[in-house]
Amino acid sequence: MTSTIKVGIVGYGNLGRGVEKAIKQNPDIELRAIFSRRNPDDVAAANGVVHISEIEKYKGDIDVLILCGGSATDLPQQGPEFAAMFNTVDSFDTHAKIPEYFEQVNDAATKGGNVSLISTGWDPGLFSLNRLLAQSVLPEGKEYTFWGKGVSQGHSDAIRRVAGVKNGVQYTIPVEAAVERVRKGENPELSTREKHLRECFVVAEEGADLAKIESEIKEMPNYFADYDTIVHFISEEELKKDHSAMPHGGMVLRSGKTGENNTQIYEFALKLDSNPEFTASVLVAYARAVYKLSQAGQSGARTVFDIPFGLMSPKSPEQLRKEIL
Amino acid sequence: MTSTIKVGIVGYGNLGRGVEKAIKQNPDIELRAIFSRRNPDDVAAANGVVHISEIEKYKGDIDVLILCGGSATDLPQQGPEFAAMFNTVDSFDTHAKIPEYFEQVNDAATKGGNVSLISTGWDPGLFSLNRLLAQSVLPEGKEYTFWGKGVSQGHSDAIRRVAGVKNGVQYTIPVEAAVERVRKGENPELSTREKHLRECFVVAEEGADLAKIESEIKEMPNYFADYDTIVHFISEEELKKDHSAMPHGGMVLRSGKTGENNTQIYEFALKLDSNPEFTASVLVAYARAVYKLSQAGQSGARTVFDIPFGLMSPKSPEQLRKEIL
Repeated sequence: MTSTIKVGIVGYGNLGRGVEKAIKQNPDIELRAIFSRRNPDDVAAANGVVHISEIEKYKGDIDVLILCGGSATDLPQQGPEFAAMFNTVDSFDTHAKIPEYFEQVNDAATKGGNVSLISTGWDPGLFSLNRLLAQSVLPEGKEYTFWGKGVSQGHSDAIRRVAGVKNGVQYTIPVEAAVERVRKGENPELSTREKHLRECFVVAEEGADLAKIESEIKEMPNYFADYDTIVHFISEEELKKDHSAMPHGGMVLRSGKTGENNTQIYEFALKLDSNPEFTASVLVAYARAVYKLSQAGQSGARTVFDIPFGLMSPKSPEQLRKEIL
Repeated sequence: MTSTIKVGIVGYGNLGRGVEKAIKQNPDIELRAIFSRRNPDDVAAANGVVHISEIEKYKGDIDVLILCGGSATDLPQQGPEFAAMFNTVDSFDTHAKIPEYFEQVNDAATKGGNVSLISTGWDPGLFSLNRLLAQSVLPEGKEYTFWGKGVSQGHSDAIRRVAGVKNGVQYTIPVEAAVERVRKGENPELSTREKHLRECFVVAEEGADLAKIESEIKEMPNYFADYDTIVHFISEEELKKDHSAMPHGGMVLRSGKTGENNTQIYEFALKLDSNPEFTASVLVAYARAVYKLSQAGQSGARTVFDIPFGLMSPKSPEQLRKEIL
C-alpha cells in the first residue's frame, strides 16, 4: 500500500460514529475530517468536527466522502450536492425512491467526474446482493426476507407517540416456525402475521391507563394491526439497562428447484449486536471500492450490483485468487 | 431480450447434464451443442452430442462455452485450449493450482479476444465470494467454512479402494456443536476432528472381514484418521436406494467484532439436494455475465471476485434497482 485512502464523514450520529470506529480497523484507510451541521464546539468527537459549510475546502484532500445522514431529508439533498464535489458512499434506504435518487446522484457525479455508490449497508446492501444472486442462480424458486431479532426505529417511534407512553422500544422477531418451513423447502405462502412478531417494551407515564395503551399499540394500522404483538410494561431503568443496544439482523432465503424436483436451499443470515456499526463497516468497505473505481477513471452513480467484490478488499487480485478463492 | 445467448457444453457427465437442465430454466439462454470425447453414438442426450474434434466449426456460433470436465486432467488442458477460441466458464477447483491455471487461461483468452471465467460453482465460487465479503466488511474476526452434510466423491473413492469393499459412499457432516459455538461468537479454535464427522456406508464383498475393513477405513491417513468416523455395513440394494443422490452444502461463517466489543455474525449456507445441478446453475448464471463482458469488448481471464452481480441477471440495471435493491 503506497498511500492511504483519505475519507470524510458527513453526519455524526450513530452511523457516523460507527464509520469512525470501522476506519480504525482498516489500516489502508485514514479519517480526514468529520463534517456536521451542528456547531463544532457542541460535538464531542476525538479528532474534532468541522462545520459542513467548510466542506468545499477539502476538495482534493478527501478521496471518498461517506454520507451518514438520514434518508428522509438529509440524503435527498446531500447525495446530489456532494456527489458533484467528491466520490461518495451512502446508505439511502427509501426503497421506493431509489430510482429517482440514483438518477439525481448519477447526474451530479457524472458532471463532477466522481463515483458515487448509493444505498449500501445490509438492507439495502448485502441483503439485496443475496436476493439478486439467489434468483440469478435459482430462477425457479421463491424468496423470503426475514428481519430481526432487532430494534425497529420506526416502530419504536410509533410506540412513543401513543398517549400515556413515556418511552419504548420495539423488536421485530421472525417467526421461527415460518423460517423452518422455508428451510425445509416447503415454499409456503406466508402472511405478514405469519412471518414476524412484534415485541414492545413500554415505559408508561405515572397513572396512565395500561390496558388502553396496550390496545392502542396493538390496533395501530400499518405498524402493528397486521402482526401478533406482545406488549410489556417496564420501568425507565429497565429500559435503559436492557434495551439500549441496537441489535438487528435477519435472513434472505431462497428455496429453488433444479432438474427433476431437487430442492436447493440458499440462506444468508446476519446476527448483529450493533446495527449501525455493521452498516458503517459495509460503507467503509465500499468506500475502498469507490476509490479504486475512481482511480481507474470511472464516474457516475453505482449500486452494490455494479461492484465486483474484489474491489472491496485491501488485497490484490493475485492475493485474492491465491488465498481466498 | 433481442436475441438469446448461445451456449455450448463440453463434457456430458453429471455437471454437463446439470448445465443442460439449468439452461432450460433460463429463457434468454439457448443450448447450441454438447461436445464429448466419446463416440456421439454412445452418448444418450436428448439433442444429440457432437464429437469434441468438431468444436472449431462452432466458432462464431457459440457465445459461451461451459467446460464441465474434471479439474485433475480435463480442465488444465481444455481451459487454455478453448479460451483461445471461445468465451468460457469453468469450475476448476484444485485450489493450490488456481494462480497457475489463471495465468494460462488469461494468456489464451487475451490472445483470442475472449472472456474466460475460471473456478466458479459453490466452493470455489459462492463460498469464496462470501469469505471475501465477510472479511472485507469485518476485518477483525475469524472465519469458518463447514462442508456438508454431503457426499464427498474423493472420500467415497478412498473407501472403494479398501480390500474387501465392493461399494461405498461417504458423507461429510459438520459437527453441530462446533457450528453453534461459532454462531454464538465464541471464536473457538477448532481441530479437524472438532469441525467435521465422516459417515461411511459400505457394501462389503461376501465373506470379507468387516472388522478389518472398518479399522482400515478409520485409520486411513489424510482421509479418515484425523476424524471421528462412523462405518455402517449395508447391502448393495440399500446403497442404491438410499445413497444414490448427490446432496451437499455447507456454511461460511464469520464472527467479527466492531466498536467496543460488539459481536457481528455473518453466515452463508447452502443445503443442496443435488450438488452437480446447483454447481451447473451457478455456471449458467456466470455464462450470462461472461457474455455481457465480452459484448462490452473485454477479454482475458476473470474470477468471481471480478464480476459484479448485476451481470448475472437477465434483468436490466434499472429493473434491478427498482425491484431488488
